[in-house]
Amino acid sequence: MASTTRLERNEEGIAKVVGILKQRFADRLQTGAAIREQHGHTTTWLENQHPDAVVFPENTGEVAEIVTVCAEHKVPVIAFGAGTSLEGHVNAPGGGISVDLSQMNKVLAVHAEDLDCVVQPGVTRKQLNEHLRDQGLFFPIDPGADASIGGMAATRASGTNAVRYGTMKDNVLALEAVMPDGTVIRTATRAKKSSAGYDLTRLLIGAEGTLGIITEITLKLHGIPEAMSSARCGFPTVDAACNAVITTIQYGIPVARIELLDPLSVKAVNAYSGLTLPETPLLLLEFHGSQGSVEEQAAAFGEIAAETGGTDFEWTTNAEERTKLWQARHDAYWAALQLRPGAKSLTSDVCVPISCLAECVNAAQRRAAELGIEAPIVGHVGDGNFHSIVLVDTDNPEEVSRADEFMGWLTNLAIDMGGTCTGEHGIGQGKMPYLKRELGPATGYMKAIKQAIDPDGIMNPGKILD
Amino acid sequence: MASTTRLERNEEGIAKVVGILKQRFADRLQTGAAIREQHGHTTTWLENQHPDAVVFPENTGEVAEIVTVCAEHKVPVIAFGAGTSLEGHVNAPGGGISVDLSQMNKVLAVHAEDLDCVVQPGVTRKQLNEHLRDQGLFFPIDPGADASIGGMAATRASGTNAVRYGTMKDNVLALEAVMPDGTVIRTATRAKKSSAGYDLTRLLIGAEGTLGIITEITLKLHGIPEAMSSARCGFPTVDAACNAVITTIQYGIPVARIELLDPLSVKAVNAYSGLTLPETPLLLLEFHGSQGSVEEQAAAFGEIAAETGGTDFEWTTNAEERTKLWQARHDAYWAALQLRPGAKSLTSDVCVPISCLAECVNAAQRRAAELGIEAPIVGHVGDGNFHSIVLVDTDNPEEVSRADEFMGWLTNLAIDMGGTCTGEHGIGQGKMPYLKRELGPATGYMKAIKQAIDPDGIMNPGKILD
Repeated sequence: MASTTRLERNEEGIAKVVGILKQRFADRLQTGAAIREQHGHTTTWLENQHPDAVVFPENTGEVAEIVTVCAEHKVPVIAFGAGTSLEGHVNAPGGGISVDLSQMNKVLAVHAEDLDCVVQPGVTRKQLNEHLRDQGLFFPIDPGADASIGGMAATRASGTNAVRYGTMKDNVLALEAVMPDGTVIRTATRAKKSSAGYDLTRLLIGAEGTLGIITEITLKLHGIPEAMSSARCGFPTVDAACNAVITTIQYGIPVARIELLDPLSVKAVNAYSGLTLPETPLLLLEFHGSQGSVEEQAAAFGEIAAETGGTDFEWTTNAEERTKLWQARHDAYWAALQLRPGAKSLTSDVCVPISCLAECVNAAQRRAAELGIEAPIVGHVGDGNFHSIVLVDTDNPEEVSRADEFMGWLTNLAIDMGGTCTGEHGIGQGKMPYLKRELGPATGYMKAIKQAIDPDGIMNPGKILD
Repeated sequence: MASTTRLERNEEGIAKVVGILKQRFADRLQTGAAIREQHGHTTTWLENQHPDAVVFPENTGEVAEIVTVCAEHKVPVIAFGAGTSLEGHVNAPGGGISVDLSQMNKVLAVHAEDLDCVVQPGVTRKQLNEHLRDQGLFFPIDPGADASIGGMAATRASGTNAVRYGTMKDNVLALEAVMPDGTVIRTATRAKKSSAGYDLTRLLIGAEGTLGIITEITLKLHGIPEAMSSARCGFPTVDAACNAVITTIQYGIPVARIELLDPLSVKAVNAYSGLTLPETPLLLLEFHGSQGSVEEQAAAFGEIAAETGGTDFEWTTNAEERTKLWQARHDAYWAALQLRPGAKSLTSDVCVPISCLAECVNAAQRRAAELGIEAPIVGHVGDGNFHSIVLVDTDNPEEVSRADEFMGWLTNLAIDMGGTCTGEHGIGQGKMPYLKRELGPATGYMKAIKQAIDPDGIMNPGKILD
């Protein structure tokens, strides 16, 4: 495991808070080693830094009580959703209380006429879509994992649908949050748009629980499209695939998903999911719309693909085939890990202007080869975002160091191209060194905001900002 | 004119700053009465509170110089774009320096492959679209007035296209800004999405110049649609028109504009623009897409309109007719003023969940009648946002008081319906009393942020927060 910074522990405060909360929450406060370890564990290569206790509140009032007690004793509070984040977001480098929001998992209201709903933070993406299906509605953001909506908001998540539907920042209307002093606020209303004061909604989205705990989320919804179709197309080179993507976006084809897999990823996916996809740079696509529009979109993409050298273009509206294809894409991370059983992964998340994407992906492949690193690539290429899934034996320090070198090199390249170190995973602990490189003096104002809102630094300390 | 709060003046500091800046900027610093008055003047019923001097910087470095001097002497700095805001945003209640950004009007870069561009804040909406047209691109946000892009970002503006393309918060990728201590920051990169730290981009968008001066904006662009068509349809009642809107949105018809005019607005527009639109509740629509898609959308809306009682449904792809129709809609504000020559207007900007829209519009019409107020209504009904343009003789205190009563009543109704006091105009001076009513304890955290970033309160004081 890669080591991460530890923070000074407030032993006295922690002991007091655990005592007070144990009395108040009884069995809903847990201090067993396994559960504490599980709450420091995420899909990450970073070492586990577990909290001192895990508490399971059932409503906003209880979250406020917990935060108020922690604030009084200056003890860290770490919000926990589904534990699917990648950058050590739920680690407790100075110990403290993990607030597990999984019991706050109710869909509080669905306003079908207004295309919005109100959910508690522990509702997961799949649970929400199950709930909405009968009403012909869906929530489009799909990071792959069955993440909690609260966690997705906190990390400004997105995923395969973002090219059409945007990210969490675009799909949250309002938040309720418990702030570091225990005050409960609402950041906005159910209005579809507003110019009322500072955008605290967007400030909390992506703040990774460092400014407050999200306790309720008002989401925009969409009608389930009349028709959906999926397509796949192989390309001779990454450049050819990226050119097809650029042309597709420029023509305004409202593609719902457009994903790149490099040959190594395709190989991994074929092996893991029992598929026979062509082991070339591959685009997977999904189209949403009316029957006519879906056919028009697929045909238009087919023409673009043919012009840019695409081969094996196939498309289908068969629901079973579609599901199988996208499940395979969602399993690409686990498939990649199986290329080297026992390895952990260190996952890049750079996002660059789409005109630089092919150059960036090619450079990443070359650099990985130079460094002797195995790193299959999957990408949300419509947004210019891709992941090199670097497979690492974390017990081998020399290998960890090479992986680190690769990650720093790739991130700097992306920033030099006008891109970002993280398109959707967030900073957490893992990407802290890169934030300053990317935004320089702006991070000083982030620190000023953190200091103003959380002067004692109790909310998820050791994340985003050092 | 309605009076507004004045702030204490720092006479000594102001005199020093004007002297220093005069020496530095020579003729680019103006202190004449007319120009100062013009820089406190906006499309507002609020009294003019002019600055002590107006300075015309030509680049970011000069803005930083100006702010640094003002910071040293604790003198107010008010950013000025095109002066088209409605809530006294550019007033100088404590005097100070108006920073007129009209000379910073260059389109710095257009990245056609990436569908983005970088502009200075003084570039206006129309100027930008002229610049982009040859490349087949456009910037969709259209508040009606030929506002500056910097001002549109600062007020989180939107307008008639927002139902399809979103607001400024959705169409800005990154900002450069001069912060209150003179530091220049970049809030993000050209990446289409990012999870890198706190969303300072969205924090500055809608901050109305109270946290910093925006000096460069990176915008998302769109390809000019292959086809556009416009339509109009009369309805027997506001309810019927709103039902047509709700069904249109629910069916996922990607309408680009959908605007409501009440009979009084139609009458005003007919008189002002020489049209013969039916003087009933009227919807004006625009569809963007491929030729086939535009026809499909118009036909689908036609069916919905027929089912909800619509009459006189007409649509056209003729560019001249389209332009005439939308120019008339854009002129609705000036047309309304002509209903009562000499009157000023106090304009509501409530935005409610669309399911409540008809009830809110009907209630506004009834209440205006009860109070003997003339207030034509125009609305961006796809978003649930509408404006009652209250015509007031501002020399008649009794009338001003009735207008105020109406505005407070309507705003409270909208908030009670789960809506906001301002969908797109911003808080400025005019809507300050309503922000607290709407967001309560959240405003305390807005103040904490303001205090942290601008401890001396020099950036556009007396706006948003008291």
